[in-house]
Amino acid sequence: MIIVMNAPTAEETARVLEKIRHSGLEPHCLVDRGKTIITAVGGADPGRSEQFERLAGVERVVAVQTPYKLASREFRAENSVVAVGGVTFGADAVPIIAGPCAVESYDQFRETALGAKAAGAVMLRGGAFKPRTSPYSFQGLETEGLAILRTVGREVGLPVVTEVTDPRAVELVATHADMLQIGARNMQNFALLKEVAQAGRPVLLKRGAAADIQEWLMAAEYLLSGGTAAVVLCERGIRTFETHTRNTLDLSAVPLVKHLSHLPVIVDPSHGTGNWRLVGPMARAAVAAGADGLIIEIHPWPEEALSDGPQSLTLANFRQLTRELAKVAAAVGRTINSGKGGQKR
Amino acid sequence: MIIVMNAPTAEETARVLEKIRHSGLEPHCLVDRGKTIITAVGGADPGRSEQFERLAGVERVVAVQTPYKLASREFRAENSVVAVGGVTFGADAVPIIAGPCAVESYDQFRETALGAKAAGAVMLRGGAFKPRTSPYSFQGLETEGLAILRTVGREVGLPVVTEVTDPRAVELVATHADMLQIGARNMQNFALLKEVAQAGRPVLLKRGAAADIQEWLMAAEYLLSGGTAAVVLCERGIRTFETHTRNTLDLSAVPLVKHLSHLPVIVDPSHGTGNWRLVGPMARAAVAAGADGLIIEIHPWPEEALSDGPQSLTLANFRQLTRELAKVAAAVGRTINSGKGGQKR
Amino acid sequence: MIIVMNAPTAEETARVLEKIRHSGLEPHCLVDRGKTIITAVGGADPGRSEQFERLAGVERVVAVQTPYKLASREFRAENSVVAVGGVTFGADAVPIIAGPCAVESYDQFRETALGAKAAGAVMLRGGAFKPRTSPYSFQGLETEGLAILRTVGREVGLPVVTEVTDPRAVELVATHADMLQIGARNMQNFALLKEVAQAGRPVLLKRGAAADIQEWLMAAEYLLSGGTAAVVLCERGIRTFETHTRNTLDLSAVPLVKHLSHLPVIVDPSHGTGNWRLVGPMARAAVAAGADGLIIEIHPWPEEALSDGPQSLTLANFRQLTRELAKVAAAVGRTINSGKGGQKR
Amino acid sequence: MIIVMNAPTAEETARVLEKIRHSGLEPHCLVDRGKTIITAVGGADPGRSEQFERLAGVERVVAVQTPYKLASREFRAENSVVAVGGVTFGADAVPIIAGPCAVESYDQFRETALGAKAAGAVMLRGGAFKPRTSPYSFQGLETEGLAILRTVGREVGLPVVTEVTDPRAVELVATHADMLQIGARNMQNFALLKEVAQAGRPVLLKRGAAADIQEWLMAAEYLLSGGTAAVVLCERGIRTFETHTRNTLDLSAVPLVKHLSHLPVIVDPSHGTGNWRLVGPMARAAVAAGADGLIIEIHPWPEEALSDGPQSLTLANFRQLTRELAKVAAAVGRTINSGKGGQKR
Repeated sequence: MIIVMNAPTAEETARVLEKIRHSGLEPHCLVDRGKTIITAVGGADPGRSEQFERLAGVERVVAVQTPYKLASREFRAENSVVAVGGVTFGADAVPIIAGPCAVESYDQFRETALGAKAAGAVMLRGGAFKPRTSPYSFQGLETEGLAILRTVGREVGLPVVTEVTDPRAVELVATHADMLQIGARNMQNFALLKEVAQAGRPVLLKRGAAADIQEWLMAAEYLLSGGTAAVVLCERGIRTFETHTRNTLDLSAVPLVKHLSHLPVIVDPSHGTGNWRLVGPMARAAVAAGADGLIIEIHPWPEEALSDGPQSLTLANFRQLTRELAKVAAAVGRTINSGKGGQKR
Repeated sequence: MIIVMNAPTAEETARVLEKIRHSGLEPHCLVDRGKTIITAVGGADPGRSEQFERLAGVERVVAVQTPYKLASREFRAENSVVAVGGVTFGADAVPIIAGPCAVESYDQFRETALGAKAAGAVMLRGGAFKPRTSPYSFQGLETEGLAILRTVGREVGLPVVTEVTDPRAVELVATHADMLQIGARNMQNFALLKEVAQAGRPVLLKRGAAADIQEWLMAAEYLLSGGTAAVVLCERGIRTFETHTRNTLDLSAVPLVKHLSHLPVIVDPSHGTGNWRLVGPMARAAVAAGADGLIIEIHPWPEEALSDGPQSLTLANFRQLTRELAKVAAAVGRTINSGKGGQKR
Repeated sequence: MIIVMNAPTAEETARVLEKIRHSGLEPHCLVDRGKTIITAVGGADPGRSEQFERLAGVERVVAVQTPYKLASREFRAENSVVAVGGVTFGADAVPIIAGPCAVESYDQFRETALGAKAAGAVMLRGGAFKPRTSPYSFQGLETEGLAILRTVGREVGLPVVTEVTDPRAVELVATHADMLQIGARNMQNFALLKEVAQAGRPVLLKRGAAADIQEWLMAAEYLLSGGTAAVVLCERGIRTFETHTRNTLDLSAVPLVKHLSHLPVIVDPSHGTGNWRLVGPMARAAVAAGADGLIIEIHPWPEEALSDGPQSLTLANFRQLTRELAKVAAAVGRTINSGKGGQKR
Repeated sequence: MIIVMNAPTAEETARVLEKIRHSGLEPHCLVDRGKTIITAVGGADPGRSEQFERLAGVERVVAVQTPYKLASREFRAENSVVAVGGVTFGADAVPIIAGPCAVESYDQFRETALGAKAAGAVMLRGGAFKPRTSPYSFQGLETEGLAILRTVGREVGLPVVTEVTDPRAVELVATHADMLQIGARNMQNFALLKEVAQAGRPVLLKRGAAADIQEWLMAAEYLLSGGTAAVVLCERGIRTFETHTRNTLDLSAVPLVKHLSHLPVIVDPSHGTGNWRLVGPMARAAVAAGADGLIIEIHPWPEEALSDGPQSLTLANFRQLTRELAKVAAAVGRTINSGKGGQKR
């Protein structure tokens, strides 16, 4: 922790030095043209820095250590590999997860699942509990949707991931799904994170629309410190002034997170753009940037979808895309994890 | 709903018209220099518009009706007044809520509460369950904090508001607090909103850091349609590129929300700026802009606070501020609801 | 300058130390749990820090000194007062500048000017060169507009401010206007800033829509170091994800800039909101927050305005507003500088 | 143009209808649950819509036609190809432009240029006039830098692009450079755009850090309507709340602009990220997303660079990258335009 003071009095400096020593840290003090720079060395609690900002004469406090530990590259130098059924995230292969925004019926989900698998997807997605901006919008089939997810997943032979939005539903969802998704709106729903950390399932943690990289890694830290080792991060776009896309897909987060953390990072170009025309180019770009997987919304009849139709690919679009992705993956020394499919638990 | 098509074929136009009629709506079609403009009149479900965006030839779909109903000025022309104990939000008086970020101990909260009341606050705030970015930061006293809140509130004779972060804790919090707060991070935690809507307590709904005005009103709609009539909105800053303040306090939201909605709006200049030096000016500005109340973080010893010390006023700062606020309120034809204090339930 | 290195080798550390010494600075080195913290003391050129970021082992470089000098409170402790004609910015009085977005004709500008003065404005605004997003929009009356500005300003007896957008036009504009405005789009048009700095006129420097506080003060530094002592800053809203207002008016910039700098700060609630309904509340809020002036768009017939009609007040709206502002100013110990009017040069 | 009115009176509706007819347009009126929807058909001036927003009863005005014409896909269905020397943008090949942020000396620029060409770059970049946030930072070698640019470009046999920041310098820069760059800060410097449009050189138009897609295309429209046919767009990152990168590189702008416009789009991953570690991944991603070129900062000794060292690749980094890019380009059916080099004018 570094404390910068602006033209402090001797008493103000003494007060800061005393408080640093009282915290069990060792202060080192320098003066540079009106500023006093105090470096506090030792095992500081990161939350402690706030207490220094309010002291008289203090201009600002600069943290030196990253506030995340278990999620950091310092903690673990090699890439973590997360396995879900037979699918692995963080290894050479780049798995593709596909499926509809929402599970709408057995027939819709089964047709989508078969098409997804045929085109090379190795895991299925589908929402049963849908967080919707409007209370009057379709909220998902809920428990019935979970049953369809599990049934179709087994029939088709692919693992499934679905979002959980309520700590009271974690146990139920965990009995139906192979991987639990924390959605963007819930990235800092800490009650939910703590419950999911103990569910015994791998977790897909989406980045919040207003979360910076550090906050995202701190949310992962809740999961890792709470009991899960198997966390996959998912970039899905941030909120910016640009309204021509639903979100601004921040692909630079992929190499940056891989520099700061050992966790796998996948990309959701569907929510990231909100526009099916942009999904293909951004999926290709994600693989080229080093993404460890993709999660893509597809629908057999997008114009009839109960949610997110505008950003869903048709099955034909998706087949075309997986062929393109295989080439891009090869160009960066990886493979699209297709053909073999994921193996069910 | 208005559908703009770009140089559609006759088949594409026919498909849109058919789908509109099939939805029970009546289409009206115009052509203007390459664009076909179709206005669909009738009782459309707002979620329906997504299904049109994906149809071939459609460029975009423009909603005509606001998606919030119960929260709108159209639904209720006069201002809603929300009463909590003897305190009212939305009437002429401008109540001030004050207290520490977190309840840290009986002594800390009681001293703060007495100082707050003496300075003119009519309601107390204090966190028992704290949503913290880091799992290693102080998470609040939880149940013990709730008990302190209730005890001190009764001793001092002021109603209390506290945040609830977990749907499983709503009933417990509702037995200890006079008003339930939904924090910014949980504004779109719909499981929580639905549970809080049925708790039988007035609700303070903070704006999410990445929520626009419409999404904020939609979150209020979850509460209103779920069973609560008593909702108070709270502007607390949005996330922008500006890092010299913790958030960017969007004071224009106050007159804008009051134009669009009948609900009271208060302002939190403490989280809105993150800097105690800016709290006073922005509190005064909020009252001048028409805010229906203020919620301000104060602490008897901010430099020892376990959270949010940098943005907390001392008791002396706060006394000075309430005197200033009384003058600004008078200048805009209102009063600061001080002196009499709120009456406990 | 503080350099944080992450687990550097001895060679990497030695390279940084050598480079610091070579820059004429004195390095002080500390090690704290894997991080090496090097504080460089001495008269560093601020631009120098970039050269350290690229050295092997360096994680980041933290500047200690503010990069602006002449604009800082450290340079000048007391508030600067800028005089334009008989109008002063930065003293107790809060001057109101009013006028149309664009000068459209002699009659329009004269009617506006008379109404503005009658209502208490002490300076006139009006655009002759209009920076417009579209090449097909009205670009201003240009030279003819300048002549109208000067003529009407003299007839009415108020000083005028107008925007200059081209370094080649600075001399011409300076012969017609009492104060030169740098618009938000040109805040970092350094060729223009350098020219305006030498024009011998006070300058109104609007904040860029994507400029943070420090960049804004750096733009002021271009003016101050280039030859102008008389700079007035103008907050006019920043670009955020919120689309219900044209910009997000960042009123907290007012007290923050006044803490960091000695320069006067005024507020433009018209561009800051883009909506005439919000201009009054935000003008009141600005004065309550400590603004040193206001600049407000008014138009005798806003629905006929060639630009910015939606955010312009009518003359009747404006008269009502100045009465309200006088009360708010009194509440914060200031006065609206009205009645006497500004005196022409 | 569509005008939505909220519960208007008969007089208010009549006023809008009259004004539409007076503008030479034909109004069509529908009523839908409290809203009156008026569609105005005919050759409206886009700037006209503002005049309707201020009319009583009007809630909002929705434009139907895009405000850019010459830049639109409707105007020109096939991709435009822009040639600079022997280099083409918008065809199958993906040219790479490389060079230092600033021209610092003949030796530095020549060494960089030779390394760039050897690695496959077909055009050179280098700043002579540098727009710098601080007046105290290195501002470029200016005229001397231009001479070095031209000399080295001819010696090495590659065309050069450099930024012009002042309308008075356009002619001079145009005699030294093969392509003129409008920088991000000047995207809406309309005086500069108008001058550059007449300089007879192809133009590289960077996106402003706070410009949305439409504003960027409108800036291109200034160039196209002002006399240049040869415009290449350059995405270089937008300003968002994320501070871990210098900007947020909005790669989705590439496929989106190519959908809306016929103009070529290239990507600047150096300014887009501000971090040399992210330049390679984002350059690969840009090509995979369909970019028509890249502009990359390189420096023989980045740690000595006078500006932008932290985001500059070494020559060795750059050679490695061009090999990777060739593979990605092949995967998406394109080629990196290397080996042959651009031919000088």
